Amino acid sequence: MTAPLRVGLLGVGTVGQGVLRVLARNRQEIERRAGRPVVVTHAAARDADKPRDCDLSAVRFSTDAQAVVEADCDVVVELIGGIEPARRLVLDALARGRAVVCANKALIAQHGNEIFAAARKAGALFGFEAAVAGGIPIIKVLREGLAANRIDQVTGIINGTSNYILTQMAARGQAFAEALAEAQRLGYAEADPRFDVEGIDAAHKLAILAAIAFGMPLRFDAVATEGISGVAPQDIQLARELGYRIKPLALAKRIARAPEAAVELRVHPTLVPAEHLLAKTDGALNAVRVHGDAVGQTVYVGRGAGAEATASAVIADLIDVARWQGADPRHHVPALGFHPQALQHPRVASLDEIESAYYLRLRVADTPGVLRAITSILAELEISVEAILQKEPREHEDATLAIITSVVNERRCDQARSKMQSLPFVREPVTRLRVEHFDV
Amino acid sequence: MTAPLRVGLLGVGTVGQGVLRVLARNRQEIERRAGRPVVVTHAAARDADKPRDCDLSAVRFSTDAQAVVEADCDVVVELIGGIEPARRLVLDALARGRAVVCANKALIAQHGNEIFAAARKAGALFGFEAAVAGGIPIIKVLREGLAANRIDQVTGIINGTSNYILTQMAARGQAFAEALAEAQRLGYAEADPRFDVEGIDAAHKLAILAAIAFGMPLRFDAVATEGISGVAPQDIQLARELGYRIKPLALAKRIARAPEAAVELRVHPTLVPAEHLLAKTDGALNAVRVHGDAVGQTVYVGRGAGAEATASAVIADLIDVARWQGADPRHHVPALGFHPQALQHPRVASLDEIESAYYLRLRVADTPGVLRAITSILAELEISVEAILQKEPREHEDATLAIITSVVNERRCDQARSKMQSLPFVREPVTRLRVEHFDV
Repeated sequence: MTAPLRVGLLGVGTVGQGVLRVLARNRQEIERRAGRPVVVTHAAARDADKPRDCDLSAVRFSTDAQAVVEADCDVVVELIGGIEPARRLVLDALARGRAVVCANKALIAQHGNEIFAAARKAGALFGFEAAVAGGIPIIKVLREGLAANRIDQVTGIINGTSNYILTQMAARGQAFAEALAEAQRLGYAEADPRFDVEGIDAAHKLAILAAIAFGMPLRFDAVATEGISGVAPQDIQLARELGYRIKPLALAKRIARAPEAAVELRVHPTLVPAEHLLAKTDGALNAVRVHGDAVGQTVYVGRGAGAEATASAVIADLIDVARWQGADPRHHVPALGFHPQALQHPRVASLDEIESAYYLRLRVADTPGVLRAITSILAELEISVEAILQKEPREHEDATLAIITSVVNERRCDQARSKMQSLPFVREPVTRLRVEHFDV
Repeated sequence: MTAPLRVGLLGVGTVGQGVLRVLARNRQEIERRAGRPVVVTHAAARDADKPRDCDLSAVRFSTDAQAVVEADCDVVVELIGGIEPARRLVLDALARGRAVVCANKALIAQHGNEIFAAARKAGALFGFEAAVAGGIPIIKVLREGLAANRIDQVTGIINGTSNYILTQMAARGQAFAEALAEAQRLGYAEADPRFDVEGIDAAHKLAILAAIAFGMPLRFDAVATEGISGVAPQDIQLARELGYRIKPLALAKRIARAPEAAVELRVHPTLVPAEHLLAKTDGALNAVRVHGDAVGQTVYVGRGAGAEATASAVIADLIDVARWQGADPRHHVPALGFHPQALQHPRVASLDEIESAYYLRLRVADTPGVLRAITSILAELEISVEAILQKEPREHEDATLAIITSVVNERRCDQARSKMQSLPFVREPVTRLRVEHFDV
């Protein structure tokens, strides 16, 4: 087993070039681990003539992705992104018995169930460490490192763009639009930022993490998402005064109280206690918190994107393939860590059903009885006030009121919000954000 | 491959009971992942009659460890600790072709090279995830998850007792002896705390981490250790004012500048920038920072000890064994992640050779010219002052001076210290602690 592992590379963009650079630079270190060289023999990209920051001299390089899939390689690395033709190419490679390594979270989140079945049928390995949290080996951690646990919760900052924007808003008091524009100037956000700031990218990743944590099929369709564009600088400031930071969280939770097995899958800006590690994860960093019944809380922090951090994950999968190639597929770690016949199918709870603590911000007229009217609404709905902050209004201005509630059903919280909204002295739509506390 | 994995357990103390409890409680979850049940069939402990918090009714339980090794099991779990008879039992089990899972960091740090060779010879798996950082799967992360990287540095808080004591000292202004006594009362420190507070336990773990990070043999003998008993509350306070926290760090570094390959292996209390995650890891938590050339900085945080956190790691290894048993040993991940013939033998640098920033604390008479004399010594030795803090003395008292130096050779720093010491107005031995800054 000392013949080189021959890699066919689909896509030679930022990450692809990173893979080629790291494979070249760490050639010796990787061979010391894999037991044999890992060599890109074929590659395809749409634009063959673009200048690239990597050495392609020993690679058969073309614009024909299909030819790479058909070439005499051991493993195909899919880095072209998007759904088609990526899906077709991956399925074709698997059907030919090739192992596949894939960084394409959208593809896996939406077509992973089909792809995993195809890999299983072919007895081929399918690695996707690079699809979530860049260089942090969170897939391997969940799938193998914490395999003894019943995982209760996975909570992460898994979209670096959103985290960068909220961090900048907090540091500089910038509005969302301003921070976004700057993130775009600096290359932290795409020209079309919707995938990132509306939570879709994080939802892709969360669907993958939840499937591995709970042993369930990928349910991207069922992830509730809410973007960060509704967060105002004022919310960040008030949250801070109440002891919180606002972070773009993705949350997967088992619901213990449900009569049948159910889980929550949601992505939204969230108030996190200031002293928690997730609150301290700033800029473009990613962090994932995993809570298991035996291990308790563990937290994993690192770069969630970037050419070489992502390449680190791609090549880790290639080294696994180099080690496992030729072994009876019965010895493979299943794609989701759970044996496919052992997958469960928990119901994904709707937001109406969830329970959470909430942050409410109201702009109210500076008249007597306001606080009484608002707290009466909460009391009638049996919602406790955990913290309250009223900012002294400037003369002739409205007052701002921020409330942290106890953990209550979301529908009930929204009832309270509607009632508050209908009070004559409540001036603007009431802002509502979720608050997350963590057990250790 | 659906027959149960039969486990023989050596040692049914805190961790052993945790293993039995978690295997029972998560029986279904573990079988969903491993593809077959994982069942303790045999166990041995010195005291068979001690009350235990786990169900032993289905286990053949005796006081005869050797009988467990000889029993018809697939894997032996060694949780008795110490060197002998643990070493003999582990080698015997491996020689019989049993897989072995082991949480015994002292045994691995001191006899790992011999044990890994024995496992290889027998084609048997040897898992030791539980030996370092409890439930944090740091061995798997380093060995597999970050395998694409040339690892430059591993820096960790890997002794919970020391971290707990320093955290208490910082929170309450307690002296070391006082914080230690309280930690003993609360069960965070042993009656004989030397292994923990003198850095020996951390050195065991560091030797293991370094071997996996760099692909070198275990060199516990070469780890330089310095305990935390020399840290005064005053140092914690001054460090804080200078923007640092004092943490019990274990450091493994490649030395880039050395003419030949060399590494540093050291355990000592260290000033860490207050904003770094390691500085924020308080109480009995563990945290490990890994820096690789591709991934950059990643950090892993969780419980470093405790029955079930350690059981989580033991059982993760058992699940690996359940998956891999019967596969050709060529497909196994090598014990250190590197193929044995690819291990390198870097020189371990002596403390005299290392370069670091330093914290110096001096008690000096409140007379003119003191600062000039001290800064002259530093200037003559070409040591820059990065930060300096002089506390206003109370009347008739001595002044306290704290200095953070630039990165310099340790021998040179100690020359400066000796020269300062010989100044007539320097009252007490000069305190010297190392300071660590981190690249991202």
